[in-house]
Amino acid sequence: MDTLLVQKEAGTLVEQAMDAIRRRIAARQLVPGARLPSIRGYAELLRVSKSTVVDAYERLAAEGVICSRPGSGFYVAGHIAPLSLSDLGPRLDRAVDPLWVSRQSLEAGDDILKPGCGWLPASWLPQDGLRRALRSAARAPDSGLADYASPLGSAALRQILARRLLERGTQASPDQVMLTDSGTQAIDLLCRFLIEPGDAVLVDDPCYFNFHALLRAHRAKVVSVPYTPNGPDIDLFAQALAEHQPRLYITNSGPHNPTGATLSPVVAHRLLKLVDAHDLVVIEDDIFADFELEPAPRLATFDGLNRVVQIGSFSKTLSASVRCGYIAARPDWIEELVDLKIATTFAGSRISQELVLAILRDGSYRKHLEALRLRLAQAMRQATQGLAGIGITPWIAPRAGMFLWCRLPAGLDATEMAKQALQQGMVLAPGNVFSLSQSAAGLMRFNVTQMSDPRTFRMLDAAVGAARRRPA
Amino acid sequence: MDTLLVQKEAGTLVEQAMDAIRRRIAARQLVPGARLPSIRGYAELLRVSKSTVVDAYERLAAEGVICSRPGSGFYVAGHIAPLSLSDLGPRLDRAVDPLWVSRQSLEAGDDILKPGCGWLPASWLPQDGLRRALRSAARAPDSGLADYASPLGSAALRQILARRLLERGTQASPDQVMLTDSGTQAIDLLCRFLIEPGDAVLVDDPCYFNFHALLRAHRAKVVSVPYTPNGPDIDLFAQALAEHQPRLYITNSGPHNPTGATLSPVVAHRLLKLVDAHDLVVIEDDIFADFELEPAPRLATFDGLNRVVQIGSFSKTLSASVRCGYIAARPDWIEELVDLKIATTFAGSRISQELVLAILRDGSYRKHLEALRLRLAQAMRQATQGLAGIGITPWIAPRAGMFLWCRLPAGLDATEMAKQALQQGMVLAPGNVFSLSQSAAGLMRFNVTQMSDPRTFRMLDAAVGAARRRPA
Repeated sequence: MDTLLVQKEAGTLVEQAMDAIRRRIAARQLVPGARLPSIRGYAELLRVSKSTVVDAYERLAAEGVICSRPGSGFYVAGHIAPLSLSDLGPRLDRAVDPLWVSRQSLEAGDDILKPGCGWLPASWLPQDGLRRALRSAARAPDSGLADYASPLGSAALRQILARRLLERGTQASPDQVMLTDSGTQAIDLLCRFLIEPGDAVLVDDPCYFNFHALLRAHRAKVVSVPYTPNGPDIDLFAQALAEHQPRLYITNSGPHNPTGATLSPVVAHRLLKLVDAHDLVVIEDDIFADFELEPAPRLATFDGLNRVVQIGSFSKTLSASVRCGYIAARPDWIEELVDLKIATTFAGSRISQELVLAILRDGSYRKHLEALRLRLAQAMRQATQGLAGIGITPWIAPRAGMFLWCRLPAGLDATEMAKQALQQGMVLAPGNVFSLSQSAAGLMRFNVTQMSDPRTFRMLDAAVGAARRRPA
Repeated sequence: MDTLLVQKEAGTLVEQAMDAIRRRIAARQLVPGARLPSIRGYAELLRVSKSTVVDAYERLAAEGVICSRPGSGFYVAGHIAPLSLSDLGPRLDRAVDPLWVSRQSLEAGDDILKPGCGWLPASWLPQDGLRRALRSAARAPDSGLADYASPLGSAALRQILARRLLERGTQASPDQVMLTDSGTQAIDLLCRFLIEPGDAVLVDDPCYFNFHALLRAHRAKVVSVPYTPNGPDIDLFAQALAEHQPRLYITNSGPHNPTGATLSPVVAHRLLKLVDAHDLVVIEDDIFADFELEPAPRLATFDGLNRVVQIGSFSKTLSASVRCGYIAARPDWIEELVDLKIATTFAGSRISQELVLAILRDGSYRKHLEALRLRLAQAMRQATQGLAGIGITPWIAPRAGMFLWCRLPAGLDATEMAKQALQQGMVLAPGNVFSLSQSAAGLMRFNVTQMSDPRTFRMLDAAVGAARRRPA
């Protein structure tokens, strides 16, 4: 009996020692090629005998986890297991991975319906203006076609952007505007600039799913605050500040993704008071600004680009093929952001900047936007009606934009419905991909511009039925 | 006397306590908004009296470094001091900052001579092909103009790239090729994927200066190995592996930047043996491949894209305005790299991919390259002659490419000469911007394609003279 017990205990100790090493490798405290602690040192650390450590190391070597180099000790074996975004966060159901909707939507062929995607159909974008811009680029001087963009990007385009900012009440000189290749890249550069691995960052719950993916890539500690129809829940926002001391808050102020909600002036004011008191920086992602009929309050306007940085792009209203975004920020941050941009991308796309400039200068863009807003409002009405027919009801009626955040019929799981729909050739955006707290299982985001195909509501109805039969 | 001494000592203790806090803030162990340790706790930690800590906190608060919130304690004040690339590394002379040459070259107007820059004059690039590609894009279907690129990027372009890789002996299926917006972005994504903050990364000494800037942005520990005319010094490479256990090595194998050297087969073979034994990953930056007359050995070819990842772009031979690069890597890495690309940029530039595709399909690109190589060889001869006239001699005679790595006349400091030249309207690339060990003070990189202006050698001569008169 005694002998067995000792053997069992020894076995447990060996396994504990093995587990401790495995955990350190998984956490990359020990990277491939790193030398393991000496047997004596590790034995002292774990307060076990040296023979326990020898056993643990030998068994790990037999498993291929570590390897011995004669006369030199034990080393972590080379499995070359690099960063995986899906490993970094809590391992959610793969179907509600923050990258699921993007991957499905971007990879979907033309025959796939995409009420879950985040962009307009190509036919809704200003094709004539784009074609004119390309023809005019073909006649441009050599340098525009061949040379790198300047570090800040096209001065003429930055001037137009500064004027557009001013129209929405935000004062910024053209030198406070730095061009990027996309809104996402703008946020990525700002995260590089503003946060360190392990820093807490606030997002809305729900929020654009790619904020989760992006912040995971930065190894941030993501903390979410419930979003109300008027903006973030201020009391819970204050609580999160006190509890997590975040460095950054990322949000949309115009039409909010995915809810379609709009920040109210009173919430904006209370929010900025908290931001000041807690020395927070806010990234205001304003990529949906051109969808608005009446401009909602902007944090950047109240704050004067002090603690608020605004980013934008043209992917939603002009072209997602021509990549161009921007950052409007404090003058003293721009220099450092330029350094970071050069270090990580060298230069933006000059040809894209020239194309966007040509289209913005072309008087047709404003007309395009006016027509687009009417078309959006009409599509919003039609989608609301069609969804009502299958028991799907809006969380709020958005004032602008393409997104309708909806409650599914009681008891229905959005992820299950999205899986069913994908099998039928339709990409949906289930609520929990937007929700860090995973509290949006009964919600779904619809893109009303992608629902004009007559099959849409029939297929949605079928997906509702199929999801009912296979409860999650 | 006694009283004074006590006061002086107390003062010192207070200052020590203040310094300790300042250091923790500088190291971001305490970030803006973070609560400072309680007075009692900090006093116990430092083994000083509580009144010493009270004094220290009050003086720091008076300086604005921290602030008190009544009833709640002391907090780090909000100076919002984010990441600065220049703060991350050793603080070198600002003139030899790794970003100096990029900033000066990218910001320089047309009247500035740029023998220090890293690209061809616009007139050397295939302008006719570019203009044809733009006109053809203007006639393309809507989706090419309006929609996001697919996650991997244009399948047709990836097919051409896979064929080009095969021509140089590297087997890769089109699905092992992921498009990026530039070679720099390709390396940046790979760094995100492969390394953690604090990981050691090997580079050549000298190497492309932006590797230093990029790796600083990733908070890597950069270690350099001297580069010989045949590749890295293998003995010192082995020594660096043993000493620093790096995870990654970044290099050029074709014409090396800045030296113009070429990897020899024997060095390549010995290098790859070390890479295998030490479980290293290599990023082979192949952006100068199209300059070569006879292909030099590629690490990716010998290794079969197992531990070697190859990246490339078209900025040097086609256009730097149309941004398009690629990564060729192990199939099992591509999925994760796609996730990272979506998270951090959402999608590549589809229009740029279409333009590059059109030019590569256009038979004129190969003819352009043939003419370009002859022109490069001629410019190399002329620059070598012109430099010889002012006592500047090549380190080696490069087999291909645009760079000539040169020794300055004895005693001359390249940084000083570059500063003098900048005042005259000429951007130079002084040796130490390429050298982590700062051992290239007497060397300078010249871009032979940017030296045809008749003023060039006269101005270089003047800069040599001025630098002599003002020794560093």
